[in-house]
Amino acid sequence: MHDLKMDMPALRAFLDAEFPQVAGALDLRTLSPGRLDLVLRPDDSHLRPGGTVSGPTMFMLADVGVYLAVLALVGPRALAVTTGCSMDFLRKPSADKTLLAEIEILKCGRRLAVGDARLTSGGAEGPLVARGTLTYFIP
Amino acid sequence: MHDLKMDMPALRAFLDAEFPQVAGALDLRTLSPGRLDLVLRPDDSHLRPGGTVSGPTMFMLADVGVYLAVLALVGPRALAVTTGCSMDFLRKPSADKTLLAEIEILKCGRRLAVGDARLTSGGAEGPLVARGTLTYFIP
Amino acid sequence: MHDLKMDMPALRAFLDAEFPQVAGALDLRTLSPGRLDLVLRPDDSHLRPGGTVSGPTMFMLADVGVYLAVLALVGPRALAVTTGCSMDFLRKPSADKTLLAEIEILKCGRRLAVGDARLTSGGAEGPLVARGTLTYFIP
Amino acid sequence: MHDLKMDMPALRAFLDAEFPQVAGALDLRTLSPGRLDLVLRPDDSHLRPGGTVSGPTMFMLADVGVYLAVLALVGPRALAVTTGCSMDFLRKPSADKTLLAEIEILKCGRRLAVGDARLTSGGAEGPLVARGTLTYFIP
Repeated sequence: MHDLKMDMPALRAFLDAEFPQVAGALDLRTLSPGRLDLVLRPDDSHLRPGGTVSGPTMFMLADVGVYLAVLALVGPRALAVTTGCSMDFLRKPSADKTLLAEIEILKCGRRLAVGDARLTSGGAEGPLVARGTLTYFIP
Repeated sequence: MHDLKMDMPALRAFLDAEFPQVAGALDLRTLSPGRLDLVLRPDDSHLRPGGTVSGPTMFMLADVGVYLAVLALVGPRALAVTTGCSMDFLRKPSADKTLLAEIEILKCGRRLAVGDARLTSGGAEGPLVARGTLTYFIP
Repeated sequence: MHDLKMDMPALRAFLDAEFPQVAGALDLRTLSPGRLDLVLRPDDSHLRPGGTVSGPTMFMLADVGVYLAVLALVGPRALAVTTGCSMDFLRKPSADKTLLAEIEILKCGRRLAVGDARLTSGGAEGPLVARGTLTYFIP
Repeated sequence: MHDLKMDMPALRAFLDAEFPQVAGALDLRTLSPGRLDLVLRPDDSHLRPGGTVSGPTMFMLADVGVYLAVLALVGPRALAVTTGCSMDFLRKPSADKTLLAEIEILKCGRRLAVGDARLTSGGAEGPLVARGTLTYFIP
């Protein structure tokens, strides 16, 4: 698709600087052009009564993941803006398991980027708990 | 559409019990069958660098709002589950203004409920910053 | 929002030229900046067994409607491209009634336009059968 | 996920009976539990001026594909209803190439089924032109 313009340490530093409220709970795992795996370790602020991860937390994980995967392709100078999302919540994630997001960039044009996120509970072999598609405008 | 099965104090108590992480920032304003207005007063946990309200916060506001408007119609005994959402982010909300969500229930069937949320920055006369549609399954 | 750059006869001529397969079944009713009402008169090609209007027909009606309402604001020189849609199908429309689409443009920026469509069966007082949001990129 | 309750000839017969307007343009290719590949051969009724496949045609292909893949799992007796969809249109498909839809069922519960469709122009190695997620209610 493209070469990488940001590597893992650069993405990590960007995450820490731009998303300080959530960076502490997120681990970036693997990166290649158009692909990123990242993991959320849920804490109390991410949970809902009943022992599950909240919808806004899953939205945040998908949004941050696609955003970082786009920036890895276009570089940090361009500030992309989320313009749209669709998400389907398929099963309840466990509150006591990490949440893995597998990101795939479907399109990275000059102005628009679109990426998919698949969230599994407990790792790639765990149940698929949500899918989302996020769209970004690159000014 | 239906009569109300929960009034404003009952919804408020439900919000405090079920969404303790976010209830403190939310004011319920007006309620009628199929309609609910609620307001978010952003604090630091809802903001993004650059002085705007984060996407997950807007998702949470729309999700909680439609959820409460559905429960007002079907009563608190049924635990609805969010199954899908679509959102469009149209303009950046101001970090120093309240965010108003105007909720409209489009369908409230025995199993599925669908509602729209329109988010304006600073009140009903302010700019439309996001729209969302949320779907719930009622077990 | 903006002034109109195309009036009803100009929109009608554009519809006939650009959407010849569907123009014959569509009536444009009322137009103002950011608003358009149009009506589909279903024929056999729009129906599904069971006596209802097909999903792709409802998608077409919403897509054409928002597209025309955007062009009315930005003029015919710019060829907008549909980049995304979300739709919720709420009730079954009657095969023997017209389908009214009420279009509202939510944002019409230099590059991105977003519009909502609400489809009712048999006229504005009929049941809401579907809602959709369409996004366009303006090159 | 599940065993197959309908095989390829049964799906083909269902397609011919239930979707007579579109069945002639569709080839079912491969089927396994939760997966279906199908191909659209565009004719004039599927095209837009400019030599591309229309949006409603892509919606139809995704919708029919996910629907058939769900029925293959749950059997023909249950009449599933499309309740929601989200689609992203990424690139323009060629009017003179077939359109391949690769369907993956993400969830097939007792009441709700969700499936993804990826549309490529000219075959699985061709460019990804659209993605969609369709949701069905199983009465």
